[in-house]
Amino acid sequence: MKTSLDCIPCFLSQSLEASRMVSDDREVHEKVLKKVMNYLQNISFDFPPPFVSRKVHEIIRREVGSKDPYKTAKEKSNIVTRGYYEKLNKIVDESQDPFICSLKVAIAGNAIDFGTMNRIGIDEAIERVLNSELDSSTCERLRKDIERAESILYLADNAGETYFDKVLLAQLEGKEITYVVKANPIINDATVEDALLAGIDEHAEILAGDEGQESSAPAIILDYSSERFRKKFWDADVVIAKGQGNYEALSEVNRKIYFLLMAKCRLVAEDLGCEVGCPVIKLKGEGNDTLHSKR
Amino acid sequence: MKTSLDCIPCFLSQSLEASRMVSDDREVHEKVLKKVMNYLQNISFDFPPPFVSRKVHEIIRREVGSKDPYKTAKEKSNIVTRGYYEKLNKIVDESQDPFICSLKVAIAGNAIDFGTMNRIGIDEAIERVLNSELDSSTCERLRKDIERAESILYLADNAGETYFDKVLLAQLEGKEITYVVKANPIINDATVEDALLAGIDEHAEILAGDEGQESSAPAIILDYSSERFRKKFWDADVVIAKGQGNYEALSEVNRKIYFLLMAKCRLVAEDLGCEVGCPVIKLKGEGNDTLHSKR
Repeated sequence: MKTSLDCIPCFLSQSLEASRMVSDDREVHEKVLKKVMNYLQNISFDFPPPFVSRKVHEIIRREVGSKDPYKTAKEKSNIVTRGYYEKLNKIVDESQDPFICSLKVAIAGNAIDFGTMNRIGIDEAIERVLNSELDSSTCERLRKDIERAESILYLADNAGETYFDKVLLAQLEGKEITYVVKANPIINDATVEDALLAGIDEHAEILAGDEGQESSAPAIILDYSSERFRKKFWDADVVIAKGQGNYEALSEVNRKIYFLLMAKCRLVAEDLGCEVGCPVIKLKGEGNDTLHSKR
Repeated sequence: MKTSLDCIPCFLSQSLEASRMVSDDREVHEKVLKKVMNYLQNISFDFPPPFVSRKVHEIIRREVGSKDPYKTAKEKSNIVTRGYYEKLNKIVDESQDPFICSLKVAIAGNAIDFGTMNRIGIDEAIERVLNSELDSSTCERLRKDIERAESILYLADNAGETYFDKVLLAQLEGKEITYVVKANPIINDATVEDALLAGIDEHAEILAGDEGQESSAPAIILDYSSERFRKKFWDADVVIAKGQGNYEALSEVNRKIYFLLMAKCRLVAEDLGCEVGCPVIKLKGEGNDTLHSKR
């Protein structure tokens, strides 16, 4: 997905929010907004929003003098969501179809997102997603692909959401799973530290998909990803990608990817053909079915 | 009210919306956004938002090559709201307290606003406002002030809202009323043409408060108002001002003003001490009670 003109006001709202997270100085906030507006006047709209966001947040971090403006917000998310973990695991275990139920849990966790201005509460998201129907044919295709798969690449999204992902990962026992996070703090995206905190290493190898980069984007962008990541990306039997950022950055890449997300922005929702606030499982790049071609 | 940093994303959303109203050319929209961002980098935040908005819309009009980007939207509002007029008049006539009911109608009409990004539907606004309670002591003060008044200055807000205002004006029979509109098209604010279309001249003299100015702000700003307006403003026994723009521009002016509006923006709502979406009657500048000092 290309960056839209509608992303401009959103980048600026986000810049203001991030600045306020680390500074009470209105002059600092004003300086951030002006620097970001200066940058946005010269961007290309040919790349997905995470490309622009990466630079916008570099400006914010530099101007507010913080390596991680969302640190406190992420810590809070990690603490709050940890409290849901046992309960969600129990719901999945007692459900008629634990796989589908754990998919729903993982999607509901994507409500924890500071990268968009439409916010959904965690409780509301869980209630809404567990009581909704995901596209059953896509769910069944994913179930079959996983059954036949040896390796699964799981692109994570946000800190805290990690605990929701863990509920799904527990259902994928026996597979060689790689859980991909960001190398550096970017918005509230999960880093290696956040993944370890949630105990993701009980189920998967944790990999910073953009290791070696000085700053991260709020998505895995192939151009900024490591060679190690790219090898896994093209070789994995199944790729699951969480969140809007990964959808924006990877939905037009020529390989089969299952996207799991809450649609939180009008533009993403339109691209997906759903309403804002909807839980989504979306299969893209079906033509290039690496699983079939490899076997 | 001073312009807030939070107004920046809102000015840009509005610029995009206005550009799209008159042009399908994405390059034109991009040019508008970039020009507006360039302007916003150098503004002072010491003045109320309508000061900035006046310049922002000058840029939009110049770049899209239209004197009135909201022309079609205003025409539509005028047609739609005309359809409510008889019904609302009847509701007021049959109500227990026609004065209070007509105040509510006038406030509900303020839902018709393209100057804010939080939109309320007309039917929803009417239903919500008629079923809510306005601050009764302020309503009674206004009733008494009107009873004793000879002259009333009524600062209008938007096209279409004019029909709702007319319902209130009909309750002020026998007073010398001046209905103040904008001299030039600005967002969907009412001009002389819109006021005449609604038949406001059956109840009031219509005056463009900023006549002589080459462009209007979405509020009456004293610095840009005509001498004729200012004389009426300071001399009138009662001043009623509709909408957020007039509240932003005049709430700190040293004279008694009754503001009637729907709070549509978080910052205005906070300043008023209410929730977004609430109908409001607010008395400001009580210390300078010209009515008492004149009599």
